[in-house]
Amino acid sequence: MPRIGRHTWKFEHPAYVVSTGTVAGSTESQGPLGGTFDVRIQDDYYGQSSWERAEQKLFEHAVKIAMDKGHCSDAAVDLCIGGDLNAQLTGFFFGLRPFHIPSLGVYSACATITEALAIAAMALDSGFAETVLAGSSSHNGSAERQFRFPTEYGVQKPPSAQRTVTGAGAILLSRKPTQAIRITHATIGEVVDMGVKSPWEMGAAMAPAAFHTIENHLTESGFTLSDFDCIATGDLGKIGHAMVREMLDDAAIPTDSRLTDCGVLIYDFNQPEVFSGGSGGACCSLVTFGHLLNQLASGLWTRLLVCATGALLSTVTVGQSESIPGICHAVVFERV
Amino acid sequence: MPRIGRHTWKFEHPAYVVSTGTVAGSTESQGPLGGTFDVRIQDDYYGQSSWERAEQKLFEHAVKIAMDKGHCSDAAVDLCIGGDLNAQLTGFFFGLRPFHIPSLGVYSACATITEALAIAAMALDSGFAETVLAGSSSHNGSAERQFRFPTEYGVQKPPSAQRTVTGAGAILLSRKPTQAIRITHATIGEVVDMGVKSPWEMGAAMAPAAFHTIENHLTESGFTLSDFDCIATGDLGKIGHAMVREMLDDAAIPTDSRLTDCGVLIYDFNQPEVFSGGSGGACCSLVTFGHLLNQLASGLWTRLLVCATGALLSTVTVGQSESIPGICHAVVFERV
Repeated sequence: MPRIGRHTWKFEHPAYVVSTGTVAGSTESQGPLGGTFDVRIQDDYYGQSSWERAEQKLFEHAVKIAMDKGHCSDAAVDLCIGGDLNAQLTGFFFGLRPFHIPSLGVYSACATITEALAIAAMALDSGFAETVLAGSSSHNGSAERQFRFPTEYGVQKPPSAQRTVTGAGAILLSRKPTQAIRITHATIGEVVDMGVKSPWEMGAAMAPAAFHTIENHLTESGFTLSDFDCIATGDLGKIGHAMVREMLDDAAIPTDSRLTDCGVLIYDFNQPEVFSGGSGGACCSLVTFGHLLNQLASGLWTRLLVCATGALLSTVTVGQSESIPGICHAVVFERV
Repeated sequence: MPRIGRHTWKFEHPAYVVSTGTVAGSTESQGPLGGTFDVRIQDDYYGQSSWERAEQKLFEHAVKIAMDKGHCSDAAVDLCIGGDLNAQLTGFFFGLRPFHIPSLGVYSACATITEALAIAAMALDSGFAETVLAGSSSHNGSAERQFRFPTEYGVQKPPSAQRTVTGAGAILLSRKPTQAIRITHATIGEVVDMGVKSPWEMGAAMAPAAFHTIENHLTESGFTLSDFDCIATGDLGKIGHAMVREMLDDAAIPTDSRLTDCGVLIYDFNQPEVFSGGSGGACCSLVTFGHLLNQLASGLWTRLLVCATGALLSTVTVGQSESIPGICHAVVFERV
């Protein structure tokens, strides 16, 4: 049975990584991981008439790059799973219009990519698909309009705020064991609400969910932190990263430099507008498909735990004084 | 292999229906199917301070009813899969806060429920879960605020408009073959865009996707229409229903009275505010879990094809003059 705990699956037939496609925005391209992305755009409008259309194109191009690198047409893809932060997942669905692929929209805020990877690996494990695409996107401009104020207002943000990443990441996965990197486990998160109410404190809102999922993963998989070369949370940023580190240490799961965060890795913090770090559906997918999988492919690392984190809020829930629950889903990548 | 065609899965270990929970709004309770719902509410605020909070409660209660009828606590549910129409799926995630269940948010607009059922049945088939909850909600008030104008404006609508259903439906599914009704097949839809641009013509926007998925299902499963006692589309309403019937007839798949639509079934059309019929994430889940599964349980029917249909739009895409793509996912329920 692939279910080895309440939250954790172990894949009998792991999902093999065929190829990835990453398209990064201008600020992300100038960050320390810029060289790891397939396409580095200079203009965040990406030749489109709106940020939302730019985001749809980013996703379409990331999917196209992954398929091209994998020598695979859309007709050879059995299933596409993904999502984005826009209301009604329009980045994902509109980005998919040029392709003819059976498609499943998923949403766990910025944890969308690991939800998609978990479902993709499940579909491959049990023969529901031979080849699956998974991906996620976000765009700073469309997220500011979706969640915050018109950018023209120039609203000041506190240092605990995070910058929504502009970009898209896609991955092509296969049942065929012809590749070196594979997804072996997934741990599905619960909705965790610790009562944080400020939308400027999303790292704090998501850290308890990240802790919960990492703890569940270790208990249920039998791995210890030392079994991983890297444990990367999705987009907690500097503040949330320090919080989850403290929670793990307090729970006698002592962390070291192997615990990192995609939202911290993606930006050069000398840029003032990045605040506490990156967030958004593309943060974890860009960093994972660009940088982290490179570390596995190059032989530097053997096993990697990616724990994407999502803050479950909308402008309506914040306006109605609701708290911000978090959710975190984790997947294990390893080099054979 | 469970994959029997490009879009279609046949479950080797079908998912058995343990129980359902349905909570219907006031207009839906007064409709012809009112007697088939577990709870019929009189006040669409449902004792809450906003429509959005009411929707969260509707979903929470539908989940609770399904668990209670199935003699199952949240600790015994391995996975919950579902979604709603609100931006960032807040109906689903906030409704789940009282429970501790690993959770996957999914979105295909009003086709969300059959996407959730397909993933749930996949997880059960291959042993990723023993017991899964799936569900969806919608609320007329929160959808009007989400997609249209403040209700206080009293904006007039054309007869082709549809009324978003207030309610929530949840279903408890199990691997254990102790029940009489089971899910045997699923057909996953593609994004189908025929260029319809008017948000008042959602039936027309979704009908091509419904046709596409029904045609794919029949070709790939080997079933003919006569193998089903009922083929129910999700929420095409009167106009979309007539369109999909014509498309099927034109494709030499002659339909008869077994082809119906949940958006047509749910309302009494003597009520003027129902326009062309129901829509919304709860339309297909309420009608399926209330009325359609009753027809199987009572022995009147043996096999049922449910094809929930989603219109992929947001206020931003409509404002940016985008067309409205559709998507349709189908599942087969049968009585053993």
